[in-house]
Amino acid sequence: MSEQAKLEKNITAAILVIGDEILSGRTKDQNIGFIADYMTNVGIDLKEVRIVPDIEEEIITAVNALRHRYTYVFTTGGIGPTHDDITADSVAKAMGVSIDVDERAVELLLTRLKREDLNEARLRMCRIPKGADLITNQISAAPGFKIGNVMVMAGVPRIMQAMLANVVETLETGAKMISETLEAGLPEGAYAKGLEEVDKQYSDVSIGSYPHFNTSGGGFKNQIVLRSKNLASLKAATADTQAMLDALQAARGNA
Amino acid sequence: MSEQAKLEKNITAAILVIGDEILSGRTKDQNIGFIADYMTNVGIDLKEVRIVPDIEEEIITAVNALRHRYTYVFTTGGIGPTHDDITADSVAKAMGVSIDVDERAVELLLTRLKREDLNEARLRMCRIPKGADLITNQISAAPGFKIGNVMVMAGVPRIMQAMLANVVETLETGAKMISETLEAGLPEGAYAKGLEEVDKQYSDVSIGSYPHFNTSGGGFKNQIVLRSKNLASLKAATADTQAMLDALQAARGNA
Repeated sequence: MSEQAKLEKNITAAILVIGDEILSGRTKDQNIGFIADYMTNVGIDLKEVRIVPDIEEEIITAVNALRHRYTYVFTTGGIGPTHDDITADSVAKAMGVSIDVDERAVELLLTRLKREDLNEARLRMCRIPKGADLITNQISAAPGFKIGNVMVMAGVPRIMQAMLANVVETLETGAKMISETLEAGLPEGAYAKGLEEVDKQYSDVSIGSYPHFNTSGGGFKNQIVLRSKNLASLKAATADTQAMLDALQAARGNA
Repeated sequence: MSEQAKLEKNITAAILVIGDEILSGRTKDQNIGFIADYMTNVGIDLKEVRIVPDIEEEIITAVNALRHRYTYVFTTGGIGPTHDDITADSVAKAMGVSIDVDERAVELLLTRLKREDLNEARLRMCRIPKGADLITNQISAAPGFKIGNVMVMAGVPRIMQAMLANVVETLETGAKMISETLEAGLPEGAYAKGLEEVDKQYSDVSIGSYPHFNTSGGGFKNQIVLRSKNLASLKAATADTQAMLDALQAARGNA
């Protein structure tokens, strides 16, 4: 695809995190931030994230809401062998397809397990919706899967990361979002008006202002982040923003 | 409220994280895990989380979906002075109320700012929907607010945490969820069937099995977490689970 065609094509995604343990606070999610970075790097726009409990109806509702709206949906969690792992069956129901033990998944498990250890629970990890492609990983034998535009991945970060790398290779990606970060050096309230004026001039640049507390001293600092898929616009908007900040600083110095 | 009445009353909540910077991966969310722990500790069941971009329509849709479904909604992010801070106006629209500069908020800002520095951008932080109560915090002058069952808080973790502590004091809370954690010492596939049998016996205990990778050696380990608001049920289910694991271990030892 030409760079221009890529710019015009918006590839979007949502993440669906499935698991009571995240909602109870017992497990702190490490996947959302990782996938968000990954999407930005490959040129897919992450537009929404949901976290839902291990309840079939909740998973089905969320999968259907997200898959009809975005190019891709990435789910994490709930594909192990225990009774609370209901993601595969729930996704099959959401997609309206049947699900059964998949021989390809059985073969994968048999590379690490003896056949006599392949009990009912472990066979649960081989339940794959009809028509899905497997997503393998180098860490554990049990696969995730891709059905339609839904990628079903493990919740354990190391396994999820391996699955993500493998499946993203098979997906369409768009123009990469590029960004510039400026240290404002001023309170937000001092530059908010000027920043809004720059923002209005560039429809293809998204500009945000982010205060953060510097725990190693210095109190609050503000960063301005400019993001665009168009390098020329990004450079122009960044220069305008810097000029606006410089003028404010100079006015302060003279006050 | 009696302990029995508390047990029967389910207080639920959702979190709505608002911000492009989380979806782009630039900022890693630190608020979801903190609020999740906080809710568990005070006896509120966190049932859903959504992350949406700084787009008015997205915020309105999410606020309305969540506020009609759960006892409380906690939002984080988007209440600063810059053009991308659109949470207060979006929440006002979702609730169908007007919004304007609020004199109580102006008074708060004037405790830290001179009146001549109270420019248009800073007054933006004083825009509070009609009928809302302010949520103050000890870190910054700008307040959050509570309108109906929606609590609007800052995105900066230190400020959010101070607001959360202040507002939760005014909310109704339920029975505290209590939990027990067992080290399985066995592969998930070995105890999944036994665990499902215990789970079926206790309708008021939620049982999950969580593999995690021990980076300091030992590879994968599995923890079984039992959660309930009923201490007697929790103790009985925990004892049954431990007995089930012990029997499996003994059988392994004899094999």
